[in-house]
Amino acid sequence: MAEFVPINYQTVLASVIEQAKNTKSLGEVASYIPELAYVEPSKLGIHLITVNNDHFHEGDANEKFSIQSISKVLSLTLSFKALGNDLWQRVGIEPSGTAFNSLVQLEYEQGIPRNPFINAGAIVICDVLVSQFDNPKKEILNLCCKLSGNADIAINAAVAQSELDSSFRNRSLANLMKDFGNIDNDIDTVLDVYIYLCAIEMTCKEMAQTFMFLAQNGVNPLTKEAVVTVSEAKRLNAILQLCGFYDEAGEFSFKVGLPGKSGVGGGIIAIHPQKYSVAVWSPKLNDKGNSYLGMKMLESLTTISQSSIF
Amino acid sequence: MAEFVPINYQTVLASVIEQAKNTKSLGEVASYIPELAYVEPSKLGIHLITVNNDHFHEGDANEKFSIQSISKVLSLTLSFKALGNDLWQRVGIEPSGTAFNSLVQLEYEQGIPRNPFINAGAIVICDVLVSQFDNPKKEILNLCCKLSGNADIAINAAVAQSELDSSFRNRSLANLMKDFGNIDNDIDTVLDVYIYLCAIEMTCKEMAQTFMFLAQNGVNPLTKEAVVTVSEAKRLNAILQLCGFYDEAGEFSFKVGLPGKSGVGGGIIAIHPQKYSVAVWSPKLNDKGNSYLGMKMLESLTTISQSSIF
Amino acid sequence: MAEFVPINYQTVLASVIEQAKNTKSLGEVASYIPELAYVEPSKLGIHLITVNNDHFHEGDANEKFSIQSISKVLSLTLSFKALGNDLWQRVGIEPSGTAFNSLVQLEYEQGIPRNPFINAGAIVICDVLVSQFDNPKKEILNLCCKLSGNADIAINAAVAQSELDSSFRNRSLANLMKDFGNIDNDIDTVLDVYIYLCAIEMTCKEMAQTFMFLAQNGVNPLTKEAVVTVSEAKRLNAILQLCGFYDEAGEFSFKVGLPGKSGVGGGIIAIHPQKYSVAVWSPKLNDKGNSYLGMKMLESLTTISQSSIF
Amino acid sequence: MAEFVPINYQTVLASVIEQAKNTKSLGEVASYIPELAYVEPSKLGIHLITVNNDHFHEGDANEKFSIQSISKVLSLTLSFKALGNDLWQRVGIEPSGTAFNSLVQLEYEQGIPRNPFINAGAIVICDVLVSQFDNPKKEILNLCCKLSGNADIAINAAVAQSELDSSFRNRSLANLMKDFGNIDNDIDTVLDVYIYLCAIEMTCKEMAQTFMFLAQNGVNPLTKEAVVTVSEAKRLNAILQLCGFYDEAGEFSFKVGLPGKSGVGGGIIAIHPQKYSVAVWSPKLNDKGNSYLGMKMLESLTTISQSSIF
Repeated sequence: MAEFVPINYQTVLASVIEQAKNTKSLGEVASYIPELAYVEPSKLGIHLITVNNDHFHEGDANEKFSIQSISKVLSLTLSFKALGNDLWQRVGIEPSGTAFNSLVQLEYEQGIPRNPFINAGAIVICDVLVSQFDNPKKEILNLCCKLSGNADIAINAAVAQSELDSSFRNRSLANLMKDFGNIDNDIDTVLDVYIYLCAIEMTCKEMAQTFMFLAQNGVNPLTKEAVVTVSEAKRLNAILQLCGFYDEAGEFSFKVGLPGKSGVGGGIIAIHPQKYSVAVWSPKLNDKGNSYLGMKMLESLTTISQSSIF
Repeated sequence: MAEFVPINYQTVLASVIEQAKNTKSLGEVASYIPELAYVEPSKLGIHLITVNNDHFHEGDANEKFSIQSISKVLSLTLSFKALGNDLWQRVGIEPSGTAFNSLVQLEYEQGIPRNPFINAGAIVICDVLVSQFDNPKKEILNLCCKLSGNADIAINAAVAQSELDSSFRNRSLANLMKDFGNIDNDIDTVLDVYIYLCAIEMTCKEMAQTFMFLAQNGVNPLTKEAVVTVSEAKRLNAILQLCGFYDEAGEFSFKVGLPGKSGVGGGIIAIHPQKYSVAVWSPKLNDKGNSYLGMKMLESLTTISQSSIF
Repeated sequence: MAEFVPINYQTVLASVIEQAKNTKSLGEVASYIPELAYVEPSKLGIHLITVNNDHFHEGDANEKFSIQSISKVLSLTLSFKALGNDLWQRVGIEPSGTAFNSLVQLEYEQGIPRNPFINAGAIVICDVLVSQFDNPKKEILNLCCKLSGNADIAINAAVAQSELDSSFRNRSLANLMKDFGNIDNDIDTVLDVYIYLCAIEMTCKEMAQTFMFLAQNGVNPLTKEAVVTVSEAKRLNAILQLCGFYDEAGEFSFKVGLPGKSGVGGGIIAIHPQKYSVAVWSPKLNDKGNSYLGMKMLESLTTISQSSIF
Repeated sequence: MAEFVPINYQTVLASVIEQAKNTKSLGEVASYIPELAYVEPSKLGIHLITVNNDHFHEGDANEKFSIQSISKVLSLTLSFKALGNDLWQRVGIEPSGTAFNSLVQLEYEQGIPRNPFINAGAIVICDVLVSQFDNPKKEILNLCCKLSGNADIAINAAVAQSELDSSFRNRSLANLMKDFGNIDNDIDTVLDVYIYLCAIEMTCKEMAQTFMFLAQNGVNPLTKEAVVTVSEAKRLNAILQLCGFYDEAGEFSFKVGLPGKSGVGGGIIAIHPQKYSVAVWSPKLNDKGNSYLGMKMLESLTTISQSSIF
């Protein structure tokens, strides 16, 4: 069976990037934050790390970009470690259905967001971090540094400022949840953390390394430390699988077949548990807000290698 | 790593059923169809078949029960084979968000159901079968017989009649989709097929055997015939993972970590690709309409065996 | 004050029709029922009857057209007489908000339609008529004949057949309400009455005469019989004011300032209690489904005569 | 006919208040703002002023209370005068359907509130006032003083502070509209005006006097000045009729039959154009947020006097 044939990932990645280069990217670079719109749209990179610590990459895999919502996996990890299953009193783990529903569902469901990756849910997670840590920003950044093996991970201040200036929608969500009693701290403090997290920058290589713990039963392979337990790692992957792509979670599962998370900076991280972690980057987004070529590259990857979790 | 330790499934299943027997079942037997309410609520069974064709079972694994919505996996399989990816013009592959949304989303999304497992989507699938086959009922039943290795699979006529008498909601959905142009055939004909499928009866053993093709890259292990391609099998599993449990898909993924599908008869089928297929049965349903103890048994199974797709 | 200056309605109507003739009609003739699309789009008529039985008219006021939803005022009248305030257990008296909400609200509000003029509400009213009368069609037609003073009021059979052939949406609504227990009779029987009512034909003159009872405290001026009590007449006018124009009730109140009801045949009836009843007709509908020039004519009427209920 | 019999309003009001005293008030005093909860629940007052300047009153008609949302009629009046029909680019004039829809509809309708009386609409109106006037608070207060004939109208600072401390929902609405580009000014500035308006206090007598201009074709009877034109007065009454009672507009029209506006302080103002203005006060609110006995008193008033606009 396919599983026992050793896959030559370098050959696979070469095909993946070749196909992507020959595919017209139909999306648009994110523009809702002015700073994000300055990125070169033709950037294209992929970096894959196996559980044996073999690295493979193609294209612009060593350039920094804004990881945006991908950081929500890390803030979820920290808050899940801190509160355990009590966390689910504050936020659900169900797909959100359609994008437009965010405010609707939030109102019906009395301020409890459907999952930690829609904006409302990620804001609740930041509220948890503010309650749990003296310096939540530093806590997240430390985790990024440890997991990525790079002490220099930082945020892009211009992106953070740009996001702050256009945060009316998030401020609306936060106030609605506060009205329902699901935000404990000051809204400005919570949104400050939220915006900070989204402005973290990484390369594909750093991103793939950062999320290796989800491919290795919760263990950071660089330090051999358990970031989370085996069971928690499986559960985090399950949440990524069901909720990582907003209104395109089904599409991503169908075509790629791996747990993953996208960001409007054009990055996507995907995990093949017990096999590899892979990060891709291409700035143009499809109309659901996910990287157009990033999804294509991951689809090629699992199709060519005939390997997905399903 | 856990994966390479041979698991003694008989011991695991014994623990699973023991735990279930010691757990108070909090749900209620389905009552919306009078016939379903007659079942003995304490029934409890599990049957697991590995890809090596080893069988394990506990409890009432050899009693027939109404598989209800689990049959929707088979009708989806037939229509996906018939139309290929053109099928997704008619029905989506995204989770439906909340249960209450069914009519709402159907109206917004112009009569295109979110996925093939919500009632509206399953009705569209039946419409496809009516268009594709001279005798769609026989086609499905033949597939059941071939896959289960039992030529005597049949429907419960009293259940079908009971469902027919209380089909106003489904008739509402079908008429709404017909208004949007997404039902080609006569509504009575389509609903007749829909109701027939839901009235199929199987034992846990038959059900586990029937869905082995999804654990074995699309191949029916009894006949070695390819029911669907490798790629199609993976995609069907992806749809089960994302959409198989209505508004509890996230919960099931989080706690069980396998693609699966439930029915209001109290049955659940779950697939561990390349490992096993497992069927459970316990008639009492939780408030989301999924078997209360069935979900508990599957959670025990993947927890004790430390094995899920994540 | 304007009220005490006798208004020369003939002069007013001449201005009204003149203005309408000089206004480009931006709407479209209703096409969802093929038969309705055959009407000559340039038809334009108005007929006003005062409480002193003075008649004034201009344009095509003596041509028959399909009164469509305007008949819902008559079916409401009959069922309100029959059940009194018990009727409001079955249907509300609140505006429906937006058009798209019909199915949404019906689902949330457990099958109780917001008001008797949205389709769902009018179907419930027909269900009441089927329960109350041996021959509800004849009952309504008799009422039309008595009120209009014309024994020959009839339906257009081609319109009724055309509507029957495209009644999937209404069938969806009826089945949903039946599922909630808010339809007592057979759905086909109820929809047959519903479709019959919509196919009634009248001239502007007949329509203005028919609804005089709402301008005269419930009394049919032709027979001096009380159709409804004073209080009931006021309440019917209140429902017309709040719910008579679907999602344009506010606009109609704002610009015209009279209780009224429109139909997709291009007719509108409006009532100035204690003053007059007026019917207008122009087949082209605006995007909310109300007669474009019909609304303009009524706006001119109350503007020129400086007289509305407000 | 009833219209020409002179009505003895003193006798009518005596009956109205007698009936109210003998009716168990089923509602609850508003508690969402702590300060409002301190009011004596048994307060009961009514004051009616005819267009001949005859005054009639019963009960606690000379005690101040928080007029709350009733002030929205005055802010609407000012902004309508300032912008004319351009105002409707910013806010609609349609009933809002159900209460729960506020955020839903606001999201669908791209930040344009359905009408000026739901919270979102009243916030837009305040945004208009901030743009139009150097000191919008003073402008409104001046208008109150002029219309009521009392130079001492003021706000209750404790109520304003209390409202400010619990304004998360309104802040959510304002941010959502700002995201859609429908708030021009700083949100804190706009909400400060909004909260100020709601904290205005009046007696029933002052309130009835204040709104006499809507009963007298736009003219302030104390000064003979036109506050608005005849046409604008009619249009304001139409908006009150359709939108003045949130999700109970139909009920109020059906039972009372006058344009009106309620506030959570337990006050209601109602207008009989060309006849009278009437204010009632009873603090306990029904489950739709309107004064329970206030609505009963107005229903008695129009029932006993057999007089409504319908």
